[in-house]
Amino acid sequence: MSDMLWSGWGDPGKAAPLPEQVVALLRDMLGVKPRDLPPVALGDIVPPAPRLAGKALADLAAHGEVRTDAETRVRHTRGKSTPDLLAVRQGETVHTPDAVVLPADHEGVLAILALAAEHGFAVVPFGGGTSVVGGLAPAADAFVALDLRRLDALVAVDEVSRTATLQVGLRGPRVEELLGGHGFTLGHFPQSFEWASVGGFAAARSSGQSSAGYGRFDDLVVGLTVATPAGTITMGRAQKSAAGPDLRQLFLGSEGAFGVITELTVRIRPVPAVKVYEGWSFPDFATGSAALRALIQDGPVPTVLRLSDETETLVGLARASSIGEGGSGCLAIAGFEGEPEEVAARRAGAGTVLTALGGTPLGEEPGESWAHGRFAAPYLRDSLLDVGAFVETLETTTFWSNLPVLYQAVRDALPGHLVMCHISHVYASAASLYFTIVTPEIDWPAAKTAVNEAIIAAGGSISHHHGVGSDHLAAYAEEIGPLGVGVLRAIKAELDPHGVLNPGILVP
Amino acid sequence: MSDMLWSGWGDPGKAAPLPEQVVALLRDMLGVKPRDLPPVALGDIVPPAPRLAGKALADLAAHGEVRTDAETRVRHTRGKSTPDLLAVRQGETVHTPDAVVLPADHEGVLAILALAAEHGFAVVPFGGGTSVVGGLAPAADAFVALDLRRLDALVAVDEVSRTATLQVGLRGPRVEELLGGHGFTLGHFPQSFEWASVGGFAAARSSGQSSAGYGRFDDLVVGLTVATPAGTITMGRAQKSAAGPDLRQLFLGSEGAFGVITELTVRIRPVPAVKVYEGWSFPDFATGSAALRALIQDGPVPTVLRLSDETETLVGLARASSIGEGGSGCLAIAGFEGEPEEVAARRAGAGTVLTALGGTPLGEEPGESWAHGRFAAPYLRDSLLDVGAFVETLETTTFWSNLPVLYQAVRDALPGHLVMCHISHVYASAASLYFTIVTPEIDWPAAKTAVNEAIIAAGGSISHHHGVGSDHLAAYAEEIGPLGVGVLRAIKAELDPHGVLNPGILVP
Repeated sequence: MSDMLWSGWGDPGKAAPLPEQVVALLRDMLGVKPRDLPPVALGDIVPPAPRLAGKALADLAAHGEVRTDAETRVRHTRGKSTPDLLAVRQGETVHTPDAVVLPADHEGVLAILALAAEHGFAVVPFGGGTSVVGGLAPAADAFVALDLRRLDALVAVDEVSRTATLQVGLRGPRVEELLGGHGFTLGHFPQSFEWASVGGFAAARSSGQSSAGYGRFDDLVVGLTVATPAGTITMGRAQKSAAGPDLRQLFLGSEGAFGVITELTVRIRPVPAVKVYEGWSFPDFATGSAALRALIQDGPVPTVLRLSDETETLVGLARASSIGEGGSGCLAIAGFEGEPEEVAARRAGAGTVLTALGGTPLGEEPGESWAHGRFAAPYLRDSLLDVGAFVETLETTTFWSNLPVLYQAVRDALPGHLVMCHISHVYASAASLYFTIVTPEIDWPAAKTAVNEAIIAAGGSISHHHGVGSDHLAAYAEEIGPLGVGVLRAIKAELDPHGVLNPGILVP
Repeated sequence: MSDMLWSGWGDPGKAAPLPEQVVALLRDMLGVKPRDLPPVALGDIVPPAPRLAGKALADLAAHGEVRTDAETRVRHTRGKSTPDLLAVRQGETVHTPDAVVLPADHEGVLAILALAAEHGFAVVPFGGGTSVVGGLAPAADAFVALDLRRLDALVAVDEVSRTATLQVGLRGPRVEELLGGHGFTLGHFPQSFEWASVGGFAAARSSGQSSAGYGRFDDLVVGLTVATPAGTITMGRAQKSAAGPDLRQLFLGSEGAFGVITELTVRIRPVPAVKVYEGWSFPDFATGSAALRALIQDGPVPTVLRLSDETETLVGLARASSIGEGGSGCLAIAGFEGEPEEVAARRAGAGTVLTALGGTPLGEEPGESWAHGRFAAPYLRDSLLDVGAFVETLETTTFWSNLPVLYQAVRDALPGHLVMCHISHVYASAASLYFTIVTPEIDWPAAKTAVNEAIIAAGGSISHHHGVGSDHLAAYAEEIGPLGVGVLRAIKAELDPHGVLNPGILVP
């Protein structure tokens, strides 16, 4: 497995320079200028000496591969939010781990957690390192990054129950490769698919682009094994049960603060024989939203369903492979995956509904273009950052009836900037809004705080699928209230009494 | 709202005496004899004087209607398990509340919880009183039953988001009546539908007979308001979110041990235009199981889907309205609800699958017969108890691949008794097994313990939809392990520091 670009996204060989017309648009229309400070080189960054005693390092080495070289430490610094990238590009090492440790298995993780309490260092679980909410910026002095990449086995496939048991260090493409060998797919394709780990999908409640058809990742998880400082907990004797609260739902979204998920049992499906994606145009966002809502509420339900607002459609960002070539109105993508006959029937039925509700079919080209570029947006961000633009994304969710209010509240909180949006995930009662901000300059900490407050005030949730991390902590505390915070703290105290796990993440 | 039969199930006017052939069968084949001790009369039961001080009762009266008369207290004694019914029929008052208090609203509930800590009595939330797992048999000295029937408002209907906000004292038929006025249905029809409250559905993770089509009750809940001794917590800003753990899933299934759910926001659907139920016959349970599994995994998915094993089919218990008139093989019921065209297509598609997998269509008569008797089984139990039989039900769930093992393990734990079973709820990866035991005599506490242990040993969950209560406490502790128990205790200590809520229920 290759390493991700340390100062940006993904495979360095796949960098996508911006078309000249986009650079011109950014310069002439938005006033984007090259950044004053050029990036530093990876090799020039010298993080401070590890704050771990030799004894601690030696003890760690008994339970995992330990690395303290500068490059490895820098590669485990922060996540992939824009502030993260801008900081690491300047060589900032505030959140650089003192060491990186790679356990081989669940027992190794347990032992490392015990050492953390003994030696007084913190532990930050590291899957794909793709957090965009400050999930890798702990409020800790000495800490180790617990890199889980060696937990990379497909443990079991249960073809009858259609479940697979996976170790958490597996990343998206490898999971599909392993399951594909058995004729199955996980069907989970978030934008971070190529780099994020399944442990991260679970710990941060990831949602994939095919969520309409396959469900969110938390819908797919039926069992978990978690290593906590207090020991091991295993959950999931069935898909659903009435044996008390669903404890799985405490660890899904726990972001490493309660324990380290080491193994997951997830639902799998036969590899679909057919995948077809098509574009639809709607005169405006409200009309398109109502059409998406009709499909998810009354069916037939596409596998992929999303809708860009007017601005995102115009810029062409809905199709990352053809940025700058947008159209008018609002572009929707509907995708259908499954057996040929079933897909044909579902697609025809959905088409009838979308047409009746004001949609104009654009054929497969926009759909295939979207599918082709579906994992490309983070590369695009790198290129935009390279030419000096500030670009960042954020997302939220609320019930359908409140969606227009939430949409307007977020836009109002970001005056004077280019703000694009799409409905990225739909449910019978609710939907998510995914915003992209492109601007020449912005006081991002202040703007982010304003947006967070606007989301909470407008009744939205602070995150639909990015998570809480450290960036959303204040808004999250407001969202769940003092009793919710109290419950989280009580659980944390029970499972992690010395507070070694991801301090400053998730638990306010 | 009329009162339920104090010593049995439901409307006393709807009692269903057994057909003569069934009484003969019980006598001649099973050796059922009339019970030695005839039931006592309600008016003859004199519970001990309330253990609450006058001051406590006076304080309670400021926050709810207080009743201490013998009849009301007896009517709030225990739930509706067979041991419960046998105990109350003998006039046992061990679990009789010292008082019954009926708050008018959420604030009243909060105030009563504060009084409980102040005066040192326990509080047992009482919705429909239909627990079958000892959920109303607290390990407490003085306690009040907190009867929530006055919280009976439909607070709001959001037709766009397809949600309704309900107070928790509403019972099934009243919810359908209120929502029906807006053209909607909740679609939740457990066997206890006519008497259980929506608060109970949530607190015990109820599952309805239409769960294949409409989901379990916990799938329907998108928001909750809970009164706890530590204050109020509200949850649910969207259907799904990545804002940390899903705290709703802590209160769903919490059985009143963490707080009193006072308000729920639930998903609703348009009232279906068509409801059609049909019977299918399979040569054996394994063949029928595989057919059900194929439908839920690959579709088309019926709204109702269940399968009786050979014994239940033979006895005819699958159709409570025609007990004693069973057939051979295994009877499955498939039900379809929705718009005419969609139902016709789904029914035809499901029929093709069921036929291909060994099913023989029996037409609508067995389906309609099942639908007609769908809420009748508890009445039937009363009649069986009346003639001296012991009859009780229990249920569990596991993944499909383990279902045959679990099925056999439960049967093996009940040697020498008539044990019938049906698959009552199906999921893509798992299914539930619902057992009915009819026998002339049994040491039920010992048998129940043996079954619980067999379920845990065979990898099943101790409950699919009945809950934990006090009857499943030991098995539940084994199911979730010491860390799971520790988490529950930590949450309980945070929200209910004086332990006034449902002591001895849920939390081991």
